[in-house]
Amino acid sequence: MTESDLRLLLASVKQGTIPQDEAFAQILAALREAPYENLDFARVDHHRSTRLGMPEVVFGQGKTPSQIALIAERIVQRGHNLLVTRTDPAAWAAVREVVPSATFHESARVIFLRKDDTPRVTGTVLIVSAGTADLPVADEAAVSAEVMGHTVERLYDVGVAGLHRLLDARTQLHAAAVVIVVAGMEGALPSVVGGLVSAPVIAVPTSIGYGASFGGIAALLGMLTSCASGLAVVNIDNGFGAAALATRILRSRR
Amino acid sequence: MTESDLRLLLASVKQGTIPQDEAFAQILAALREAPYENLDFARVDHHRSTRLGMPEVVFGQGKTPSQIALIAERIVQRGHNLLVTRTDPAAWAAVREVVPSATFHESARVIFLRKDDTPRVTGTVLIVSAGTADLPVADEAAVSAEVMGHTVERLYDVGVAGLHRLLDARTQLHAAAVVIVVAGMEGALPSVVGGLVSAPVIAVPTSIGYGASFGGIAALLGMLTSCASGLAVVNIDNGFGAAALATRILRSRR
Amino acid sequence: MTESDLRLLLASVKQGTIPQDEAFAQILAALREAPYENLDFARVDHHRSTRLGMPEVVFGQGKTPSQIALIAERIVQRGHNLLVTRTDPAAWAAVREVVPSATFHESARVIFLRKDDTPRVTGTVLIVSAGTADLPVADEAAVSAEVMGHTVERLYDVGVAGLHRLLDARTQLHAAAVVIVVAGMEGALPSVVGGLVSAPVIAVPTSIGYGASFGGIAALLGMLTSCASGLAVVNIDNGFGAAALATRILRSRR
Amino acid sequence: MTESDLRLLLASVKQGTIPQDEAFAQILAALREAPYENLDFARVDHHRSTRLGMPEVVFGQGKTPSQIALIAERIVQRGHNLLVTRTDPAAWAAVREVVPSATFHESARVIFLRKDDTPRVTGTVLIVSAGTADLPVADEAAVSAEVMGHTVERLYDVGVAGLHRLLDARTQLHAAAVVIVVAGMEGALPSVVGGLVSAPVIAVPTSIGYGASFGGIAALLGMLTSCASGLAVVNIDNGFGAAALATRILRSRR
Amino acid sequence: MTESDLRLLLASVKQGTIPQDEAFAQILAALREAPYENLDFARVDHHRSTRLGMPEVVFGQGKTPSQIALIAERIVQRGHNLLVTRTDPAAWAAVREVVPSATFHESARVIFLRKDDTPRVTGTVLIVSAGTADLPVADEAAVSAEVMGHTVERLYDVGVAGLHRLLDARTQLHAAAVVIVVAGMEGALPSVVGGLVSAPVIAVPTSIGYGASFGGIAALLGMLTSCASGLAVVNIDNGFGAAALATRILRSRR
Amino acid sequence: MTESDLRLLLASVKQGTIPQDEAFAQILAALREAPYENLDFARVDHHRSTRLGMPEVVFGQGKTPSQIALIAERIVQRGHNLLVTRTDPAAWAAVREVVPSATFHESARVIFLRKDDTPRVTGTVLIVSAGTADLPVADEAAVSAEVMGHTVERLYDVGVAGLHRLLDARTQLHAAAVVIVVAGMEGALPSVVGGLVSAPVIAVPTSIGYGASFGGIAALLGMLTSCASGLAVVNIDNGFGAAALATRILRSRR
Amino acid sequence: MTESDLRLLLASVKQGTIPQDEAFAQILAALREAPYENLDFARVDHHRSTRLGMPEVVFGQGKTPSQIALIAERIVQRGHNLLVTRTDPAAWAAVREVVPSATFHESARVIFLRKDDTPRVTGTVLIVSAGTADLPVADEAAVSAEVMGHTVERLYDVGVAGLHRLLDARTQLHAAAVVIVVAGMEGALPSVVGGLVSAPVIAVPTSIGYGASFGGIAALLGMLTSCASGLAVVNIDNGFGAAALATRILRSRR
Amino acid sequence: MTESDLRLLLASVKQGTIPQDEAFAQILAALREAPYENLDFARVDHHRSTRLGMPEVVFGQGKTPSQIALIAERIVQRGHNLLVTRTDPAAWAAVREVVPSATFHESARVIFLRKDDTPRVTGTVLIVSAGTADLPVADEAAVSAEVMGHTVERLYDVGVAGLHRLLDARTQLHAAAVVIVVAGMEGALPSVVGGLVSAPVIAVPTSIGYGASFGGIAALLGMLTSCASGLAVVNIDNGFGAAALATRILRSRR
Repeated sequence: MTESDLRLLLASVKQGTIPQDEAFAQILAALREAPYENLDFARVDHHRSTRLGMPEVVFGQGKTPSQIALIAERIVQRGHNLLVTRTDPAAWAAVREVVPSATFHESARVIFLRKDDTPRVTGTVLIVSAGTADLPVADEAAVSAEVMGHTVERLYDVGVAGLHRLLDARTQLHAAAVVIVVAGMEGALPSVVGGLVSAPVIAVPTSIGYGASFGGIAALLGMLTSCASGLAVVNIDNGFGAAALATRILRSRR
Repeated sequence: MTESDLRLLLASVKQGTIPQDEAFAQILAALREAPYENLDFARVDHHRSTRLGMPEVVFGQGKTPSQIALIAERIVQRGHNLLVTRTDPAAWAAVREVVPSATFHESARVIFLRKDDTPRVTGTVLIVSAGTADLPVADEAAVSAEVMGHTVERLYDVGVAGLHRLLDARTQLHAAAVVIVVAGMEGALPSVVGGLVSAPVIAVPTSIGYGASFGGIAALLGMLTSCASGLAVVNIDNGFGAAALATRILRSRR
Repeated sequence: MTESDLRLLLASVKQGTIPQDEAFAQILAALREAPYENLDFARVDHHRSTRLGMPEVVFGQGKTPSQIALIAERIVQRGHNLLVTRTDPAAWAAVREVVPSATFHESARVIFLRKDDTPRVTGTVLIVSAGTADLPVADEAAVSAEVMGHTVERLYDVGVAGLHRLLDARTQLHAAAVVIVVAGMEGALPSVVGGLVSAPVIAVPTSIGYGASFGGIAALLGMLTSCASGLAVVNIDNGFGAAALATRILRSRR
Repeated sequence: MTESDLRLLLASVKQGTIPQDEAFAQILAALREAPYENLDFARVDHHRSTRLGMPEVVFGQGKTPSQIALIAERIVQRGHNLLVTRTDPAAWAAVREVVPSATFHESARVIFLRKDDTPRVTGTVLIVSAGTADLPVADEAAVSAEVMGHTVERLYDVGVAGLHRLLDARTQLHAAAVVIVVAGMEGALPSVVGGLVSAPVIAVPTSIGYGASFGGIAALLGMLTSCASGLAVVNIDNGFGAAALATRILRSRR
Repeated sequence: MTESDLRLLLASVKQGTIPQDEAFAQILAALREAPYENLDFARVDHHRSTRLGMPEVVFGQGKTPSQIALIAERIVQRGHNLLVTRTDPAAWAAVREVVPSATFHESARVIFLRKDDTPRVTGTVLIVSAGTADLPVADEAAVSAEVMGHTVERLYDVGVAGLHRLLDARTQLHAAAVVIVVAGMEGALPSVVGGLVSAPVIAVPTSIGYGASFGGIAALLGMLTSCASGLAVVNIDNGFGAAALATRILRSRR
Repeated sequence: MTESDLRLLLASVKQGTIPQDEAFAQILAALREAPYENLDFARVDHHRSTRLGMPEVVFGQGKTPSQIALIAERIVQRGHNLLVTRTDPAAWAAVREVVPSATFHESARVIFLRKDDTPRVTGTVLIVSAGTADLPVADEAAVSAEVMGHTVERLYDVGVAGLHRLLDARTQLHAAAVVIVVAGMEGALPSVVGGLVSAPVIAVPTSIGYGASFGGIAALLGMLTSCASGLAVVNIDNGFGAAALATRILRSRR
Repeated sequence: MTESDLRLLLASVKQGTIPQDEAFAQILAALREAPYENLDFARVDHHRSTRLGMPEVVFGQGKTPSQIALIAERIVQRGHNLLVTRTDPAAWAAVREVVPSATFHESARVIFLRKDDTPRVTGTVLIVSAGTADLPVADEAAVSAEVMGHTVERLYDVGVAGLHRLLDARTQLHAAAVVIVVAGMEGALPSVVGGLVSAPVIAVPTSIGYGASFGGIAALLGMLTSCASGLAVVNIDNGFGAAALATRILRSRR
Repeated sequence: MTESDLRLLLASVKQGTIPQDEAFAQILAALREAPYENLDFARVDHHRSTRLGMPEVVFGQGKTPSQIALIAERIVQRGHNLLVTRTDPAAWAAVREVVPSATFHESARVIFLRKDDTPRVTGTVLIVSAGTADLPVADEAAVSAEVMGHTVERLYDVGVAGLHRLLDARTQLHAAAVVIVVAGMEGALPSVVGGLVSAPVIAVPTSIGYGASFGGIAALLGMLTSCASGLAVVNIDNGFGAAALATRILRSRR
């Protein structure tokens, strides 16, 4: 309810064209603002698309296959794009029953349905990964970004121990509107990329490594304390979060 | 050295208009690309302004006052804006000697000199803080953003325990091009802001708190694991980093 | 104090050989010297019900199915309610043999038997959960509270990233005698609820999340350092503990 | 604005007794709900007293003496009790200037002003401490609870290594409406107390200890993982938080 | 020093060619130059029994069944008692082939062979456990102590939340020469026992618990920072280590 | 049991109205119901000496000088030895006023008064330190042990990087009844000593070191996970605790 | 392209013996320096052998069997030695198909192919392990070192709790050019070895142990804080890294 | 082996009563039984110079000025080079009294005396630092290396955020026999250097940084988990340790 709506409503009350009780109800509803659908175990936030510029994304971890399928069905019924992250074949089997046109990306562990493949956002999102083992996270970022309407490019296995592989791709790096850098182990790649380009660099630590990598802590700390200024850091293995941040950045450009 | 420069140079060598030795030197220099100034204890990267869209910023911690003063002098001599972070009165006394027009912001622990006060970047950067104790970090972000050419607004002491203070400012929140949210303790404010606005939200954990806040770890972990999608997180107390990220985001809009 | 002791004492009171006040004191002391049953591998504290206002609860983790079944049998034989937490289908199979009227709640991993469904405690315990994935812990709290004699209401999936879902339920929140708030990831929901209601708020961190949530540490630290005053925090995933605390609070009201 | 207020207002608009614009303004204000006072660096939440049953408490850490004094002055002007925690002599000097009737408790590091010494809440709050070194935290809890209107008793230096000191005080323990147990080092005292009494037990870990106590982590973890059911845990050294929780519990009894 | 060396030496002493004192020194030195058997993947320290008063114990974790069987065979061939800790059914199957008279204690995960059941050390070792779930560790301590020649008593499930169960056993506690206290969760039991008895108390933290017990860290820290003076702490779940320490203590009494 | 109770009991024994064995049991029980002195801020446990074989030791950290002086005075008045640990010159100044015969050991940060210098316990306590920087902790152990009645020897600066210094002292090592090994940094010395001697080895990690020693954590973990069997570990820098454990061990030998 | 190459090239351009376009291409290529092969999911760095003196090693963790097989095939096609670490039987099955002459070392989890068994580096690499359970890591170091052309000797199960086993091997220790010391638990062995020999000592912590060994952290911290000067530490379980460091050291001797 | 032993032995060799080879073996063994000087609080290991190729270095932390001065005096009396690390002006004042020719390097916190400035080891040690704030650690490494007889070069402030500064120095990097890389914050520089050169790279993490750098943990973890193979890591801020490792490496080349 905008301010002009409210003015109009009060005028109508005064003129008697709208009953007082109805006005009361409308204002009360407006106070509650955003609609959602209550499934008891979940409250699907259909309004999110309008509010935040991206659909409600289903976080698959800890949900049963039937819960995921039910939520997925409601999202698709409303005409939104579907994106389920951190999911698995069991959930996919359940979703496929009710949303047959969806796709399951096994390595990225993502179920998605994209209504329309035309990019709707200007600017390329470049996904850079340090090693081959970081691919699942890089793919989660790439698929998520595509579902959110971005043009996506990939530049994989360009870790800092063989710097020439990265330096070869300078043109591609400079052309990107946003660079998502995915790296495990010591997570040094975002520092180097951040020193080369002026675009926003989103650093995604991965849990790849062993011993003192502590499941991604080494990479996470490295990215947070980078000597390159102005890196954006997201959670360990959070490819989806990087894509969502890219959406916030690029949509804000319109 | 662009590709056409190289072609031209080689043609000149063939024609003899440029001596072979000079061409050799030019190509060698080009390979080294970016100029910097070697002070022995520091290599000032004057090229950074062109490369990354912001000047080299002096990280004051661990440098002696005389080192800071010497670096500051060189930066100002080149005509760049000056920004020294994590500094103190002793360094300020030394810098003031050689850059008398600079300013020291005591609470933010920042020395700065801004050649030109006109904002040079479109879009407002809104700095939101959860509590009064977070002000030094919020101020570091604000001053840094101003030096980088942004229009800055402040919305302080709107923590989630009194939600109405934040909800009152919704219009201001929605109008911002980038929102920097500074919070200590449990660091919940970015989650709430991230659920309200679609613009990029930069979450800055602070070391404010005691006991289980562990010098900002609680806030940092809270921001990294936020249920709001697409938050950008920077290091604990890193107000400058948030401003630098805002610059990457807003400059990329041009 | 054996039964014959008690008989003797009462006779002495009747005869006037022992003053009434002294007898009173002796009986009180005896009540606090609580009986238990020694099964060698376990000492079942049958007196706990009288002493603490709730029955001895069986912590299932690390006990064999036959140990659990034997303890369960003894508790039910004494006429107490039965509650086994952190258990599994194998233990359930063993308990079902000896306590056929018990129930197994699979998601909450709880075996229970409630002699009498009438709530015996005044005031509603409202269980609020941030996400669908937090349900097992929320259900452990809900089932435990019901076995302890409380009226329980549930308000699930109202995390802070979609604040309107929570604000819609303000009336329900204000009506509760105790609010148990279950949240994983950054665990911000108790801070917001704690700022809205004046009733006791029990914050239960869950291990839901990944990466920097560190199995619930992020949520735990967030709740401990909340800017909302006077939150009660329990262990990660400890739905039962929250219910037990609600019992301490509400029974103390009588 | 209650629902009946709203009904009345709309009726007045229809009848023309209240101008449309004024009604608009009133509803808008009501949407903003709770009043607060904007000091730029702080937004003092005067409404908190009504909303949460206790006044806004000033968290002194990280605030300058003049900020604290200014906030204190405003709180007292509104007729609320004053409570400043985690403060120091410098802040006390500033507050004394503007609120001469306030008191500074040096060991508890608390500034307070209590309008009225009559306890306004039924039930005794018993503060139990494990060692003499825990006194500052126990005193913070005690003073805070008194300012909030409670009757407070103290039982100090009854740690578990000399159990008879605690067992001697059983009568006092059983009589308390709420027991706040303050302990550093291994923090075992709340487990023992929780096994003795049925009232709510609030466990406050302190940073007393050295080496593996890690500034209170040992005590905190011990309390969170206590084998006694239903303990409420608060942050390390958070005596004030324990008092605030006692207020939530005892006020809910009315 | 080979046997023939010894013969020669003694002959020289007899003949007076070597002074008695020098021979004494040589033999002493030889005893401390201990023999071992090289299996390439392992060097079995047969001398340990003489040097340290207990046989070499085989740490089963990380060894293959055939490695364990081979080492076990050599130890038994030399006439030593056998003790394999942290082992499993696969290793047991292999050991049974070569040492058919050995026993496998499933819950304690120990394989052992005790040549002679008569206690060879004066004084009772009392094993106290806080909960039923701590039994595997308590049993590892008990079996190990028995193999090392001690008289062992067990007092299980006497955790501090039901203090009367422990206080009932005071006589047994006071009679013990060494008390081994096994506890998970907050690990408070050794503090209480340490305050009751003057004998050496060996505290064994277990990994029983969840959430903030962090696999035994809470119990470990609690025991290290105990307010009871002079507790001996061993590694998490290290029942064997506690028994070995009891041996060092009680053998030193002879 | 009051004095008159005792008189009565003994009279009854003499008269034969109460059997001697029963009287014995009653007196024993009474001894374990220990008296203490309530100073409000502290409850001085005068009985501890009888119960645990060592006097109540005053833990100085977190106590004010006047509190320490008051407690010290009472302990000395009762005729006990005095031992105040983790104290400082300010406390010493206060104690000296009321217990002029006490001594302050500056490096060990201990105030003590020993009524009688004759060792009252059989067997030597050998204090071994890895480096010179570990002396304050080694001295705390040594002074504490002397106050508790032990014969103490010192073997300092024999760290494992120069193994010959330790091996030279083998005879001294083998002769000790208990060996206390104090080491910072990697804390490897107790492993080596534990492999050489069969006596109880008490490992004391110190906070000496920097970087990855993390204030003694490296040494603590090293000692807890030692490959030498049966080491007793105490808290970081806890020289007093090691002495108290030695007392438990050696007194149990009588 | 060396500087003399560049001079020659420019001379040729001037003389017209090399066309301008070809010179342009050569310089451009030189700028990119090192060749690699792009498989999309991986960029195989064939140049590494020349640049760093050892072949690109395939880090098996997180790669699919078919990815590993494809990379292995390309490396062998180029005539390099093959080394795949942290791999498993599934990957081995895939590699065997395309590189039938390779070998799989099951305990070391390594696939390798060594063109030529003659040691190509002077000096022996001695691999010392503390316990039998450390063998997989020691074997990874040994096999890796052999593939890199070293002469390798093994000295296994010589942990510090039985020091004589190590001291017996002093001659072998002194003869080694580089000593790799592999140890879990408290990781004390490198300190002792580092105090005995003057050669470079590479310390490899392993994840062997339990409880407070925290998956190798205890050993890692112990090695980093060793009182022996100049130890080189690598990641937990990183046998390969130790071998690679030995290669850097011994190749630098030529 | 005393001097007279040696005389006797040599006489026997001359007379032929002892074969030359046996005498050789005896003397070698004696050399490894190293002498030291017992100052009670310290045992100065004068032999270390012969055994390990570098003098005993005095670790200043935790030693009193007079202890340091006494040790320093003895070392210099024996004709060794002097090196005291982690020291301060107070110690310097004391040392200067007894060793007037020594020097104090304030930023490196090192006292040293070098008998002879001629480099005695072949090969350059190149010290690379990431930032100006890392200078104290870099200087500790440089001074230590010089005292140990190395030729040292410095390359400071070449962090990865401005990669061209490092790439400019490739020739210098390739020429070094050993490269010591000192870096704080994310510690990425050793990864990049390790990918460029084949010489041994010693990575020294520093405590420079704030927030998530956790006093050097971020840099330490980054270096341990580097994707560049074969880096040698030392403790945080351990410049001396890096120099000592360089000595082990370069002396082994002779």
